[in-house]
Amino acid sequence: MEKAAQRKTLIGVIGASDADRAAAREAHALGREAALRGYALVCGGLGGVMEAACRGAREASAGALVVGVLPGYRKEEANPYVDLVITTGMGHARNCIVASSADAVVAVGGGSGTLSEIAFAWMLGKPIVVIEGLGGVSSGMAGGTLDRRRGDRIQGAPDAARALDLVEKLLNGR
Amino acid sequence: MEKAAQRKTLIGVIGASDADRAAAREAHALGREAALRGYALVCGGLGGVMEAACRGAREASAGALVVGVLPGYRKEEANPYVDLVITTGMGHARNCIVASSADAVVAVGGGSGTLSEIAFAWMLGKPIVVIEGLGGVSSGMAGGTLDRRRGDRIQGAPDAARALDLVEKLLNGR
Amino acid sequence: MEKAAQRKTLIGVIGASDADRAAAREAHALGREAALRGYALVCGGLGGVMEAACRGAREASAGALVVGVLPGYRKEEANPYVDLVITTGMGHARNCIVASSADAVVAVGGGSGTLSEIAFAWMLGKPIVVIEGLGGVSSGMAGGTLDRRRGDRIQGAPDAARALDLVEKLLNGR
Amino acid sequence: MEKAAQRKTLIGVIGASDADRAAAREAHALGREAALRGYALVCGGLGGVMEAACRGAREASAGALVVGVLPGYRKEEANPYVDLVITTGMGHARNCIVASSADAVVAVGGGSGTLSEIAFAWMLGKPIVVIEGLGGVSSGMAGGTLDRRRGDRIQGAPDAARALDLVEKLLNGR
Repeated sequence: MEKAAQRKTLIGVIGASDADRAAAREAHALGREAALRGYALVCGGLGGVMEAACRGAREASAGALVVGVLPGYRKEEANPYVDLVITTGMGHARNCIVASSADAVVAVGGGSGTLSEIAFAWMLGKPIVVIEGLGGVSSGMAGGTLDRRRGDRIQGAPDAARALDLVEKLLNGR
Repeated sequence: MEKAAQRKTLIGVIGASDADRAAAREAHALGREAALRGYALVCGGLGGVMEAACRGAREASAGALVVGVLPGYRKEEANPYVDLVITTGMGHARNCIVASSADAVVAVGGGSGTLSEIAFAWMLGKPIVVIEGLGGVSSGMAGGTLDRRRGDRIQGAPDAARALDLVEKLLNGR
Repeated sequence: MEKAAQRKTLIGVIGASDADRAAAREAHALGREAALRGYALVCGGLGGVMEAACRGAREASAGALVVGVLPGYRKEEANPYVDLVITTGMGHARNCIVASSADAVVAVGGGSGTLSEIAFAWMLGKPIVVIEGLGGVSSGMAGGTLDRRRGDRIQGAPDAARALDLVEKLLNGR
Repeated sequence: MEKAAQRKTLIGVIGASDADRAAAREAHALGREAALRGYALVCGGLGGVMEAACRGAREASAGALVVGVLPGYRKEEANPYVDLVITTGMGHARNCIVASSADAVVAVGGGSGTLSEIAFAWMLGKPIVVIEGLGGVSSGMAGGTLDRRRGDRIQGAPDAARALDLVEKLLNGR
């Protein structure tokens, strides 16, 4: 009798709460692809890129697990596509928990919040993929490094599907 | 087309990482009962009461969702029955996230960590049920209050099943 | 040339933000005594017991160092007697930082917040003294333990001066 | 009788724990200048840029207040020039507390940790000055923005003294 849990692999989706149309479209595709491939999603649980990704996962699969890690204490603040709400009450420091709980992160555009999540993901050794061509802080980071604590680079991908291909390769290569 | 998520209701199980036999038995029953009734479980993700509850849920239902909110960054530190690992890296402050993310908490024995979770659950207005007769800090708290910020009391129950009956009543009564 | 800093010893004052007159009087005396004896004060930085202690320290000595560790991000929320404001933005989890940054804690009455700080101070091995006879959660804890992770007990003292005598003895005995 | 505290203004110094010689020299000058101008220093409390800045402040003025906000719980981990140790136990999330508690931040070189602090300082509306020509993540950020939540830009300065001139101007202009 093997009762140990099958640990869920969490794809972190990071991006701004006020996504433009292109970013929202890629985020939606990313959530959808991740759910179809059997991954759980983790994000900050609010609007914009986060909501688009959650909606993509929810629409793709009734069984998708969509985790929202909120800055506040009120579960009602999560977007309607989150089914598991973690309320941290820790304000911006919740970004560290998103990055840490993800097994890999994919950045979709984004601003200062996204930048903090990329920085934390880097510190914590998580694979990082940015979708290129969407503007925001993450777009130009493909191919770069943040410091010498790790030997790899931030990866770039032209779209959501190829971002997930990369994530899978990076996760399997560990 | 209704695509909004069905929010999972999370039962927080709090108790010591070095549970004695009686506490471990009640914790196991609690996890089992919670899973059978369709609740997700959230706890600190480590050993003792936490592990017993997670195992109970896992054994009761292949579809149980068992969330472990860890103090550190390493997913491997979770007990083997956790399937969704949140790594906070926030040390003892993760107790606040366990209490906050739970929709209600049930205490099974416990020491200083459990006491901090009861205190946070109280601050955050969460229903609190303690299983009586198990010793530890929580046992004697049934019927009591911590301050005047809320009008209700910490509830006591003689065993896991009746603790969950109470939790259900309290959650539905809100 | 000795340039290393003389580390400041921090006395943590914990208690409710809505102190009654007796608690406020003891808190004020505690802040005053601590400052006169050359200690820095650390507390949650808000009103009630916290403000009374900060005011006591400030009035006793122009050179008193009074540290307020706030739950939010806005320095203006500190009471007017705090001169060093740490804004955590971490909500109730800042209680863990108060307990952790203190070298010893003294409880003056208090409710659920104070209880969480006593629990954290216990987990972290800090000497804990409660002023007796003031009501609130801490009053009845003198002489007690929370679990077996440490061999000593929560100490009781009849007033602020004797609480500090005890703290000094406990700090020097380490 | 005016007993309200004179709030200390905190200059946040952010940079890597493994600073090269040029970064360490600027950090030392920055700590020195800040202390001579009457500011308190706040940083992550560890080595490299942090230690150099703390040492600069300590050597410049016996009365300098040097605050170290540590990731762990052990005060002994602070560098020897910190006199006020805040132990958060919150791992990398302590970076958020450094940025938040500072009234303005000055970056000296740095890697992913520094980047997270710049991101948080930006989110929290703090003036940000980077010392140019030192390499690391911060060097190239002068003149840039992270998103549209604020209208100003990250400022660049050629050395520590001029960084502090800028900080003073920015703080007084608010």
